[in-house]
Amino acid sequence: MKRIKIKFLILALVLITTLPVFSQVKKNSLKLPVIPGYELLKCDFHMHTVFSDGMVWPTTRVLEAYQEGLDAIALTEHIEYQPKSEDFSSKDHMRSFQIAEKTAADCGIILIKATEITRKMAPGHFNALFIKDANIFETFVNKTNTRDGSNIVETLGEAKKQGAFVFWNHPWFQHPENRSEWQPIHEELYQKGLISGIEVVNGERYDSLVYKWCLDKNLTIMSNSDIHTPMVQYPGQYRAMTLVLAKERSEKGIQEALVDHRTIACMDGQLFGKSEWVKPLVENSLIVKSRQINDKSASLEIENISGIAYQLVVLDSPGIKLRLNSHLNIFTIDAFSQNAITVSSSKFVKGEEYSVKLNVLNVQVAAGKPLEYVIKFRL
Amino acid sequence: MKRIKIKFLILALVLITTLPVFSQVKKNSLKLPVIPGYELLKCDFHMHTVFSDGMVWPTTRVLEAYQEGLDAIALTEHIEYQPKSEDFSSKDHMRSFQIAEKTAADCGIILIKATEITRKMAPGHFNALFIKDANIFETFVNKTNTRDGSNIVETLGEAKKQGAFVFWNHPWFQHPENRSEWQPIHEELYQKGLISGIEVVNGERYDSLVYKWCLDKNLTIMSNSDIHTPMVQYPGQYRAMTLVLAKERSEKGIQEALVDHRTIACMDGQLFGKSEWVKPLVENSLIVKSRQINDKSASLEIENISGIAYQLVVLDSPGIKLRLNSHLNIFTIDAFSQNAITVSSSKFVKGEEYSVKLNVLNVQVAAGKPLEYVIKFRL
Amino acid sequence: MKRIKIKFLILALVLITTLPVFSQVKKNSLKLPVIPGYELLKCDFHMHTVFSDGMVWPTTRVLEAYQEGLDAIALTEHIEYQPKSEDFSSKDHMRSFQIAEKTAADCGIILIKATEITRKMAPGHFNALFIKDANIFETFVNKTNTRDGSNIVETLGEAKKQGAFVFWNHPWFQHPENRSEWQPIHEELYQKGLISGIEVVNGERYDSLVYKWCLDKNLTIMSNSDIHTPMVQYPGQYRAMTLVLAKERSEKGIQEALVDHRTIACMDGQLFGKSEWVKPLVENSLIVKSRQINDKSASLEIENISGIAYQLVVLDSPGIKLRLNSHLNIFTIDAFSQNAITVSSSKFVKGEEYSVKLNVLNVQVAAGKPLEYVIKFRL
Amino acid sequence: MKRIKIKFLILALVLITTLPVFSQVKKNSLKLPVIPGYELLKCDFHMHTVFSDGMVWPTTRVLEAYQEGLDAIALTEHIEYQPKSEDFSSKDHMRSFQIAEKTAADCGIILIKATEITRKMAPGHFNALFIKDANIFETFVNKTNTRDGSNIVETLGEAKKQGAFVFWNHPWFQHPENRSEWQPIHEELYQKGLISGIEVVNGERYDSLVYKWCLDKNLTIMSNSDIHTPMVQYPGQYRAMTLVLAKERSEKGIQEALVDHRTIACMDGQLFGKSEWVKPLVENSLIVKSRQINDKSASLEIENISGIAYQLVVLDSPGIKLRLNSHLNIFTIDAFSQNAITVSSSKFVKGEEYSVKLNVLNVQVAAGKPLEYVIKFRL
Repeated sequence: MKRIKIKFLILALVLITTLPVFSQVKKNSLKLPVIPGYELLKCDFHMHTVFSDGMVWPTTRVLEAYQEGLDAIALTEHIEYQPKSEDFSSKDHMRSFQIAEKTAADCGIILIKATEITRKMAPGHFNALFIKDANIFETFVNKTNTRDGSNIVETLGEAKKQGAFVFWNHPWFQHPENRSEWQPIHEELYQKGLISGIEVVNGERYDSLVYKWCLDKNLTIMSNSDIHTPMVQYPGQYRAMTLVLAKERSEKGIQEALVDHRTIACMDGQLFGKSEWVKPLVENSLIVKSRQINDKSASLEIENISGIAYQLVVLDSPGIKLRLNSHLNIFTIDAFSQNAITVSSSKFVKGEEYSVKLNVLNVQVAAGKPLEYVIKFRL
Repeated sequence: MKRIKIKFLILALVLITTLPVFSQVKKNSLKLPVIPGYELLKCDFHMHTVFSDGMVWPTTRVLEAYQEGLDAIALTEHIEYQPKSEDFSSKDHMRSFQIAEKTAADCGIILIKATEITRKMAPGHFNALFIKDANIFETFVNKTNTRDGSNIVETLGEAKKQGAFVFWNHPWFQHPENRSEWQPIHEELYQKGLISGIEVVNGERYDSLVYKWCLDKNLTIMSNSDIHTPMVQYPGQYRAMTLVLAKERSEKGIQEALVDHRTIACMDGQLFGKSEWVKPLVENSLIVKSRQINDKSASLEIENISGIAYQLVVLDSPGIKLRLNSHLNIFTIDAFSQNAITVSSSKFVKGEEYSVKLNVLNVQVAAGKPLEYVIKFRL
Repeated sequence: MKRIKIKFLILALVLITTLPVFSQVKKNSLKLPVIPGYELLKCDFHMHTVFSDGMVWPTTRVLEAYQEGLDAIALTEHIEYQPKSEDFSSKDHMRSFQIAEKTAADCGIILIKATEITRKMAPGHFNALFIKDANIFETFVNKTNTRDGSNIVETLGEAKKQGAFVFWNHPWFQHPENRSEWQPIHEELYQKGLISGIEVVNGERYDSLVYKWCLDKNLTIMSNSDIHTPMVQYPGQYRAMTLVLAKERSEKGIQEALVDHRTIACMDGQLFGKSEWVKPLVENSLIVKSRQINDKSASLEIENISGIAYQLVVLDSPGIKLRLNSHLNIFTIDAFSQNAITVSSSKFVKGEEYSVKLNVLNVQVAAGKPLEYVIKFRL
Repeated sequence: MKRIKIKFLILALVLITTLPVFSQVKKNSLKLPVIPGYELLKCDFHMHTVFSDGMVWPTTRVLEAYQEGLDAIALTEHIEYQPKSEDFSSKDHMRSFQIAEKTAADCGIILIKATEITRKMAPGHFNALFIKDANIFETFVNKTNTRDGSNIVETLGEAKKQGAFVFWNHPWFQHPENRSEWQPIHEELYQKGLISGIEVVNGERYDSLVYKWCLDKNLTIMSNSDIHTPMVQYPGQYRAMTLVLAKERSEKGIQEALVDHRTIACMDGQLFGKSEWVKPLVENSLIVKSRQINDKSASLEIENISGIAYQLVVLDSPGIKLRLNSHLNIFTIDAFSQNAITVSSSKFVKGEEYSVKLNVLNVQVAAGKPLEYVIKFRL
């Protein structure tokens, strides 16, 4: 049966806000398990529209997010970079927010007031979320050199005054060697409490050094699309997003969670986050059933109820012979799929508990360090 | 990331029964929801191996079934058609069962003793499940005309004596016009209680006339692959199978359910079964969340937690304007996916309950009659 | 190997026009065979940007077209419907053309000056291609009732004066019953030579009645996307487009071909066009090799070198037994694939020529009439 | 439109050899370009059926090969390992060849007489192709220790006497460390001219050390599936095969090419072969069109007309600035697809020739050494 094309469905969505008729849209939403005690929210805190250097109308950003099942987004237009300004009648930096607001409400998406503060590297670019008004930031722009970063402390100070949550965007961007470098100005901003998070992931790029800084300095892990062009995702593929473990599904809930560092970076099937948060995510994604085959072997059926494929590698476990066939030491449990693994022991005793240790390769609890995942089973 | 190829994984499975090492297999198992009070078992009661006119070794049939997550299978070799017999040393009609038995036990699959009784049309072919010994049926074969159907009553009488459950296979097969016809001999077999079920689906073919007979005569709905060649399924595609609503996952449980007509035919994303059985299957597959948008519109998010895609069409419902956009009057909720639909009313009153009526096009409660499915929601 | 995501590649494309560095883009271009004597051009003559009621910036339309391998496009902004006008500083109706022009030149895409003339049904909407200036059409708009169609003859007369090629868009649009109706005003426009083509396909909809009119009245077959939202296509899926058989790849070449009715509508794997144009397209898409198996059977291997899947049904042919297996009377030769068919005859004579007649179901030479396709082979 | 399932099509194929009716099969054949002067044949010289330790009937191996568009196969049953022998009436080691012969002829597939000579490592397993009779090899089997390799020189000597082409299979197999080791017995066999080829690829495994030996010792590169279970391939995926550059499409042509080392290993989208053979394969797969954008930039459109995806990386080229965007230094041209790349120079002079150097990562001309591929273009 032919797949109904996404383009048409987005068209249908457009109608929601204009025509009082029935419509439907096929979503492409990353399915995540429930984590007890939290609302696990899918957020993208960095994107652009025609009101800075993006290519789509603000409402389109909301509808794209709706289709991907996001809970919250922020339109982060550049204050200092407005390549289309001659075509626009207004200079109000809140215009894209104003245009998108009603559509967001209709779609049940939390639209966060935000802006991107744009300086040459160093210091680079910063997003300020939960601001009150973006226009005031224009007063800090050096009109003869709009990207001059000399007054970044004052600028981010204003953001702080507004109660904003500020993070450093794509720290490698415009670095002469295209790599991330923690420079004195970043140390100063950090020491003064002017940056609270950092993009470990931006678009298609994950940076392991930034992840290391992030954990070492106890900054909040951020992961965003920074999309400028239309968002195109095949079914089962998703933009870079920040998973937020909030106490409630609200702007306030998100802000509290960001301040408390309860986030996971999610990009292209990979997760980056503290063990404390990614472990329950994995454990609630995988359901294991065991079955004894005979004295010496047992079968474990692992079902993945999430939309994330997990890449697993089996480690030695006491009393259990876990030598994988040479080609099978790494295996993947696809989204919504089941794999069966057979384990052998010199002797399986009925009623006793066994455990198998695995590493989850696509879930990193620190740069280069996979999550350890233990399957316990009783025969 | 590259998909590991199925062929290799089946190879790995082969090892399960021979080598005492760890192995794993990626399953391609149709995910079904839990139906309270029943074990919903996936069964295929019709297939062949090299021991009649099939092309694979009996253990391969078990491993194919294991990979597809089946609960029970029956190897139904023809008594009367043994094109490879000159190559085989034994004439034992239970040989394929004997060879497959241990692999089935290791895989946790219920292997049912069975055979196919093969006559020219009319009367055609019949499968006898839960037999004790297939060899005795050879005594009924007319050696000069092996497909002579004149003693079919005696033959099926023997099956009945063994306590077998007998069903008529692909009633259209070898009919001169390739269609199903209920002939006097079938009426006789039916009146004498010698056939209890009928294949509404065989392989790629569903027959609506047979479905009508099946319900009219209160026969058990059967749906089987009748596979002769290797079973090749892409991920997310599944063989024709009979879904059995058993009280326990055992041979006995299956037999009791077959006798009590608690089955659903499942083929290529379509279900054929009594409303009594398919309705809870659909209702437990789809989870609906409602959200009020404004006075006049509400959003329903429907999540499909099953592996079956549902094709829905919206019907008029009292007080709710359900005119779909012209292109969207039929929509599909893919396996493990979510769709959002927007409904409008002249006025939605907080706290009141509303209902939307739909037809499920790929679920037929009688020939040509889709299941009615009602979504109730309170705003 | 992971597919590189389209969104990123479009980003890369954006760079083409701004940065003098190497970049690459994965195209999703419908592969068509060479038709001797013609340039077979892929065109989309109907689309919108933020400069009327579309959702993307004009350059994005060019880049989308570049990625789909189109040869020519037209931005057809509504003169009379400018929902975002308060946000824009200019009222120039050529603004979207001006913005897109350089990108089109860089991408080697023919950008045709065009506009959409927008009236209530009847008469409905019309596109004028190859115009000189869109702004003059504003003088015809009734300011108190912008969609008033009373002066449509004058308006299209002005288009004619500019040398434009005018076609009627989506004739069913805003008809109270959502169907196409040839009303007196259309007859008048037609009689006066003010419309030369008609959209047989618009977006996802093909209209068989319009196709009938088109052939009966010798209008030019048009097929366009009318895209408002971002264009999202999976690999191997393509927008509705008009295939133009031009004598040269230029704006002039396209205009000459449109006037001479040398077009094919292409939508979702279906072609609608005169036998004269679609027959060579199909014949140059399929390469057949024959091989004798024995006295009574021969094998035909058909290779499809195009990106269009063909659905074929075999018809009776003299002297050749072409009874398909019941399930196989219709078969599909996928894009870039091969199928092998086996044909039988009472006796195949070496050196003699045989022919097999087929219908191509997805190629309609008139409404509901499939193309006949004959395979000739010599053994 | 629903894909017709492979299982059904193979069923249809079965009919070819039994019923005199029309049938068709959808092939999944790796499309290769024409290499002038040669027939590029797709071959698999290593596979098993139920007549040794395989799981399918011999005709099934032919039909699988037919569907994948192979030109030649060899059924290489073990002489010494016959786990199903008690079920078979005959001990004739040519039985699987005899059963498959007619189907191969009907399908136009070259079926090569062959066997696998099976010893413990060292020396391991060897395939002998183009033998006259496999039964004579049984005389060399040590009946009390069937895998005893002490008389391997005599055994392979007999193969040589029959005019066979012998190659060493999966040199890593049953090595205690699962790696390949060139042991004295291999040196002896090599010095005596008893082995002429070696499996660089077997099933899913490519061994770079074996590839090095192969080129250093001027052995023939072999790549085979060694399939035991049914062959399951998704569309666009293909078994490991040996591409043979033959002077004619015949058994004799294949034998001459093997002896002359004109082969390429093909596995999972990767090619391993001498530059002399893989270079024309790549060059005939990719068609490049150039177009000047302006003084400083040009566009190259690369079309892949083959079924192999090529992974390319751009290298520095004189006078051309080829700095790829950081994320795009490696790119893939999918099967039957087009990519467009933009190159910049300080000044492009009309009429002059330029060249861009690339490496083709998935084509290795020696272990770890990618093919160099140069695109020349004139603006």
